[in-house]
Amino acid sequence: MANNSQINLNLTQYLEVEKIGLGAFFPIMGFMNETEFKSVVNEFCLPSGDIFTLPIVLDVDEKLANEIDIGSTVELLYMGSVVAHLIPNDFYNCDRSLVAKAIFGTDDPNHPGVKHFISLKPVFVGGLVKLLKRIDTGIWHDKLTPADTQTIFRENKWRRMVGFQTRNVPHRAHEYLQKIALEFADGLFIQPLIGQRRSGDFTPEAILTGYETLINGFFPKDRVILGTLSTFMRFAGPREAIFHAIIRRNYGCTHFIVGRDHAGVGGWYGEYDAHRLANKFEGKLGITILCLSGPYFCEICDSLVTEKTCPHSGTDAVKLINGSDMRQILGDGSFPNPKLMRHEVIESLNNIKLFMDE
Amino acid sequence: MANNSQINLNLTQYLEVEKIGLGAFFPIMGFMNETEFKSVVNEFCLPSGDIFTLPIVLDVDEKLANEIDIGSTVELLYMGSVVAHLIPNDFYNCDRSLVAKAIFGTDDPNHPGVKHFISLKPVFVGGLVKLLKRIDTGIWHDKLTPADTQTIFRENKWRRMVGFQTRNVPHRAHEYLQKIALEFADGLFIQPLIGQRRSGDFTPEAILTGYETLINGFFPKDRVILGTLSTFMRFAGPREAIFHAIIRRNYGCTHFIVGRDHAGVGGWYGEYDAHRLANKFEGKLGITILCLSGPYFCEICDSLVTEKTCPHSGTDAVKLINGSDMRQILGDGSFPNPKLMRHEVIESLNNIKLFMDE
Repeated sequence: MANNSQINLNLTQYLEVEKIGLGAFFPIMGFMNETEFKSVVNEFCLPSGDIFTLPIVLDVDEKLANEIDIGSTVELLYMGSVVAHLIPNDFYNCDRSLVAKAIFGTDDPNHPGVKHFISLKPVFVGGLVKLLKRIDTGIWHDKLTPADTQTIFRENKWRRMVGFQTRNVPHRAHEYLQKIALEFADGLFIQPLIGQRRSGDFTPEAILTGYETLINGFFPKDRVILGTLSTFMRFAGPREAIFHAIIRRNYGCTHFIVGRDHAGVGGWYGEYDAHRLANKFEGKLGITILCLSGPYFCEICDSLVTEKTCPHSGTDAVKLINGSDMRQILGDGSFPNPKLMRHEVIESLNNIKLFMDE
Repeated sequence: MANNSQINLNLTQYLEVEKIGLGAFFPIMGFMNETEFKSVVNEFCLPSGDIFTLPIVLDVDEKLANEIDIGSTVELLYMGSVVAHLIPNDFYNCDRSLVAKAIFGTDDPNHPGVKHFISLKPVFVGGLVKLLKRIDTGIWHDKLTPADTQTIFRENKWRRMVGFQTRNVPHRAHEYLQKIALEFADGLFIQPLIGQRRSGDFTPEAILTGYETLINGFFPKDRVILGTLSTFMRFAGPREAIFHAIIRRNYGCTHFIVGRDHAGVGGWYGEYDAHRLANKFEGKLGITILCLSGPYFCEICDSLVTEKTCPHSGTDAVKLINGSDMRQILGDGSFPNPKLMRHEVIESLNNIKLFMDE
């Protein structure tokens, strides 16, 4: 039955298939073969020279791999439905520990990205993907596809569109970065990443409700687009910042904000490592990366600032705004200082489940 | 005596000679001949195609013009000293009213730029200028030349430098625009224009003292450079915004802020006419123009904002910040709202003459 084999996808794999099919990972049109994989891991680019910083792989068991012929048409199923066709062109594996070190800078399995990567099934299947059908997984469904946003931006004649990546209910540091972008851009595309499911993460409902409240009350609504991106967090720090930028380029953005410790976790990356990598690729991505610092509220400046605009860091006047702290305060049910998070946003979350269970 | 003629310069003319000699008006190396003049007035560019939006002319009496030979070396004197040589290559005049309409959009002599232009002496002398000597006119002396700032920027390896033009003691709208620039640039070059002498204008002392207070107290000092530019205001609105950008490019800036009604006066120009002209020349100037809106304080947003970031315009929550209002309040001796102007700045001006007499 080699000519009619099937692969059942888990949610993470389905979302990868969907993103490939929607063009979100362009120029990636399928799962990477070994040549592409090695080039991306070791050279930060595809064999064509196009910058690409994270591998896109489909992992299968050895037994299944042995049943599949190169060049055949494989059906990819999710929840019992055929969602895509795959034409396999390569089967390979890699030294998981070595590759993890290259991607994440560590092979420590306490790093959640490493943990995910080393636990993938043993064989990677490369090959072109043709998306046939999207599954509406409810809140997981992408609100806007790359084709949708490109159309919106074009029809509005927006020349400068800034993309913003987030996994949080918005606090005022996020708002500050977004408003800086809006000062010189035509529009802002806020696209929370909602494909992760780690315990303690904000729920998609909380993130989207928070943003809707903020945008409706405090933003020029007609120039802010709220979408979602369903894909899993890889916690690859600098490499993932570039990956996130490439995705937003594919959605039609001309600029992308990379802040402090983008796609970081714990203390695995330096605060501005992502900026250094972004500077290295300047002019090669088809999107301009705005390297912005981490905002805080300064009582002396009497405004939201960053270390790039305020000389008072390290004093009592400085009120740090940190996603993790906000998460804890919201979990406690206490009200943060309105300089740090808007009450209207918090109140709008009253009847909404805030955090993911495992 | 045709081979040894001299021209005595007034202050405005001397400052033009000095700016030409310092390279501030590059690629202009002398006073424009008729071909260059007509090209700039009618086509917004030099015959070479380089964008240049305002004429640089030396005006003389007919009698003096008749005494000067084309190709001779003319001594340019200021305050009795020979400051430069001029090699005349053209004598011409123009229809003042027609040219004023082209430059200022009006020939109404109530417009101060028009008034100055139509009162120039009847003959324009074109020709290359060689600066021999600078006259230190005290506060009028440029604090940093283009060569100085280019060296500073290069030695600090600042890749993105934003230039800021002002004629005011800084209020918080200015600070807001400057801090936006600092968020994504490596440095900020604040260069007040101090060559004007209209009654009611701030004195250079007041402007510079205000900025020193602001920078020392509220800015990351090591990335903010304060200079001065001594040249007269032409009040040519959009054309002068581009002219100001070209000058800052010559000082080494990569970006230049054009806000609301840049180089405007009264109600002669539309609020964002300068942005429209800047967009037309995008990519042709060698400097990126940041088209920013006019900031105000919004009580609902609880921060400084512009119409590009705040939806609450037109409500009671909005506190406009306006240079003219600030001037009036400071003139009255009253203290503005600290959301609009910092008390530290006002206090530092206590013993300083604020306004120019006629």
